[in-house]
Amino acid sequence: MAGHDSSSLTSRDEDFPRWYQEVVAQAELAENGPVRGTMVIRPWGYGIWELLAAELDRRIKDAGAENAYFPLFIPESYLRLEAQHVEGFSPELAVVTHGGGRELDEPVVVRPTSETVVNSYLSKWVQSYRDLPMCLNQWANVVRWELRPRLLLRTSEFLWQEGHTAHATAAEAQAYALQILRDVYLDTMSTVLATPVSAGHKTARERFAGAVRTWTCEGMMGDGKALQMGTSHELGQNFSRAFDITFATAEGGVEHAWQTSWGVSTRLLGALVMVHGDDHGLRLPPALAPAEVVVLVVRSTPEVEAQARAIVEGLISSGHRARLDARVDTGFGRRSVEWERKGVPVRVEVGPRDLADGIATVVTRHSREKRPVALGEVVGTVSELLATVGPVLLAEATAACRQRTTEVTNVEEAIEVAGSGFARLPVAAMGPAGEDRLAGHALSVRCIQHADGSLFDPAMTGAPTLEEQPDAGDLVALVGRSY
Amino acid sequence: MAGHDSSSLTSRDEDFPRWYQEVVAQAELAENGPVRGTMVIRPWGYGIWELLAAELDRRIKDAGAENAYFPLFIPESYLRLEAQHVEGFSPELAVVTHGGGRELDEPVVVRPTSETVVNSYLSKWVQSYRDLPMCLNQWANVVRWELRPRLLLRTSEFLWQEGHTAHATAAEAQAYALQILRDVYLDTMSTVLATPVSAGHKTARERFAGAVRTWTCEGMMGDGKALQMGTSHELGQNFSRAFDITFATAEGGVEHAWQTSWGVSTRLLGALVMVHGDDHGLRLPPALAPAEVVVLVVRSTPEVEAQARAIVEGLISSGHRARLDARVDTGFGRRSVEWERKGVPVRVEVGPRDLADGIATVVTRHSREKRPVALGEVVGTVSELLATVGPVLLAEATAACRQRTTEVTNVEEAIEVAGSGFARLPVAAMGPAGEDRLAGHALSVRCIQHADGSLFDPAMTGAPTLEEQPDAGDLVALVGRSY
Repeated sequence: MAGHDSSSLTSRDEDFPRWYQEVVAQAELAENGPVRGTMVIRPWGYGIWELLAAELDRRIKDAGAENAYFPLFIPESYLRLEAQHVEGFSPELAVVTHGGGRELDEPVVVRPTSETVVNSYLSKWVQSYRDLPMCLNQWANVVRWELRPRLLLRTSEFLWQEGHTAHATAAEAQAYALQILRDVYLDTMSTVLATPVSAGHKTARERFAGAVRTWTCEGMMGDGKALQMGTSHELGQNFSRAFDITFATAEGGVEHAWQTSWGVSTRLLGALVMVHGDDHGLRLPPALAPAEVVVLVVRSTPEVEAQARAIVEGLISSGHRARLDARVDTGFGRRSVEWERKGVPVRVEVGPRDLADGIATVVTRHSREKRPVALGEVVGTVSELLATVGPVLLAEATAACRQRTTEVTNVEEAIEVAGSGFARLPVAAMGPAGEDRLAGHALSVRCIQHADGSLFDPAMTGAPTLEEQPDAGDLVALVGRSY
Repeated sequence: MAGHDSSSLTSRDEDFPRWYQEVVAQAELAENGPVRGTMVIRPWGYGIWELLAAELDRRIKDAGAENAYFPLFIPESYLRLEAQHVEGFSPELAVVTHGGGRELDEPVVVRPTSETVVNSYLSKWVQSYRDLPMCLNQWANVVRWELRPRLLLRTSEFLWQEGHTAHATAAEAQAYALQILRDVYLDTMSTVLATPVSAGHKTARERFAGAVRTWTCEGMMGDGKALQMGTSHELGQNFSRAFDITFATAEGGVEHAWQTSWGVSTRLLGALVMVHGDDHGLRLPPALAPAEVVVLVVRSTPEVEAQARAIVEGLISSGHRARLDARVDTGFGRRSVEWERKGVPVRVEVGPRDLADGIATVVTRHSREKRPVALGEVVGTVSELLATVGPVLLAEATAACRQRTTEVTNVEEAIEVAGSGFARLPVAAMGPAGEDRLAGHALSVRCIQHADGSLFDPAMTGAPTLEEQPDAGDLVALVGRSY
């Protein structure tokens, strides 16, 4: 395959943004599209996304949501029905003015998110309490015009899932937004992405346009900056009032539904690079590796090929995604570097010399450790190794995040330490003016959580927003510089 | 759930187009979107699409193609690089003129298909014979502005997969286009959709804009009209010349790659309705049923609920998609009709009276046959029944198609019989003028095949197009009226 080479990577510590770009290119994850800000997701990147999407999809269905598909094109007038929503998204819209060779009567926008169009249908489909909860999800592309695009992290078009739900009570909607946050997002982040995240809610300043509360998962990248990795919004009755989503109650009344929306995107592939990558490229947790193991033929002989094939088959029989690399007309060194850049968790090298000794060489990507393994034990050894990779990557990332997180007592201290890491600032010591002051230093409150890292429980207070919460108690603002 | 009701359906024979619309609506497959020509795919319709896409995806991967994702937005100038291509698609384009609040320097089109953008990347990624074949596929939405939209069949936006490949020789490309036609499309049509199709190649008039040969699968709908269900194109070197896709040969030369592209879309859901639907709604082959079995609680007692749950669990343990319908605050009749409209292959009804007799009632959707089954035998009986449904639907559809297919000897005869069915007209008796004459009667050549229904084998002649094939031999044109 073309497009990669064995040229050396910039070191991560030397120039993190450049290192990131090089890894994305050399691991063949993605490239810039021809229209500024768009991207091409290459097979290796898309393979990771397929695995991640399947993990998310299973959890979303377990949470009771059904998949559906809503149109890409939304009448401009729909956006205007929720005032905050249109204000938030207007600057990012792509607008179609011509269709089928003619100017359109009403321009249509390419969806930046689908609250408006989904809710215009929920107003038809939700009639009675019997129809609730109605929990929908869609896998789709969305477009938000980006002035400072960055591959995978901030692109004018990206892929995502977006959930949209309607419930009979505020408490149910709140509970569902949290269920998605915990059972879908937090669980996937730790067990699949092997990435530690801080969860909490957003301040009013950082809230989704149209939400009453936004829950978020914030990850710390390898340079100490923060990445918003997923959000789950309580929409209250904002959209159900704008789109007239009402239902007949069991008691004969009529009420507006309570709603949520939530999403994660291909941005998570960028997080994967920035959390787990090293100076040799990507390091993949096996759960997201299109190939968990690649068996390389070092130099071809009939015996070597047969043995390599037997190992691949043994690994596949053991339930692993394993591939054979017998492209011996490409140099072995070049191929090794290719799989290393791509982050394949384990490589098995089979060559004539090793074979004569009855062994193969097993290389662990995350530690770069090589070890000779007797041929009869390769499959078992690789299986055991693979089981350890995810937990090790998670432990490493957790340690790095802890090391760069500092408890502070006032805004000035937060300004000093945040940016190359997180500062944890008591909300009581911040105040609304504090948030402005942080913004002046390109810092923001990534989320609010309890001092022990747990989520602020809205059910305990009933306060719909932090601002209406008179006593911040032990709440802490996680301060960082955001991607 | 709202949106359905137990109102009667128009009969299929009485008014086929109206019957189709009603089934699509009442089975909750899809609805019109707010922008004319677009559609909302509802959970039941999308669930069918997910199953179909998974079946296709597995076969596409088995054929050696890898999934990737290319941008929605394509610079207008790209479309112009292949002359026939731009001519074919220009009238259907949606054009974005504004992004991020400004007028764009160059308008971008919303992809109607992705040959141009994919091939602009293949020109980078394909360098050496070692890079070939390069076989890519993407699952995506595409936009073709429709003046006469029809839900699922012809919509301004639809979902599909599109494959794009590059090969070292014409023969390889040809073989791959046919491999996709046979191993992916024809196999899925018969074993998954339970739908008979006629396969062959298109005449120049009906060929894909930019292809040298288009292979197609043509299905006969319940009204005798033809639906193009999937196409696989040989692109020759048309795009590789336009986009400069060259590779270094093993011998040190430089050549243009030979290419294919191929796709099927959500239109197949429309085919499912029109092939298998009856006067009571949709009839689903189990392979595409989001629920293969629904177990209905007729009237709730603790014993009935427990028994119904046990049956659902037994069916799930046996590997079936089974659902419980215990919504007893909705009338039983209404729920039965709902599942009938949706085409669930088998229903199991559990009520207090049956339970007292130690039985449940098993209803087969396609035959509407009801039978009492001893409780201990329900799971086994349902499993056996389900195995028969696909083959029965295929046999019924095949018989209907045969019955409406007529062998004719000249164009006038074809005009007489085609439209409410297919006419099989010897190519030698048609000639180019014959195709014009058919067009005057809103008929077209759906495909060319051998008299025995087999594919014309291009490898036997080397002729790149039918027109260059001097002797039509026993070739037959399948003439019909197309959707």
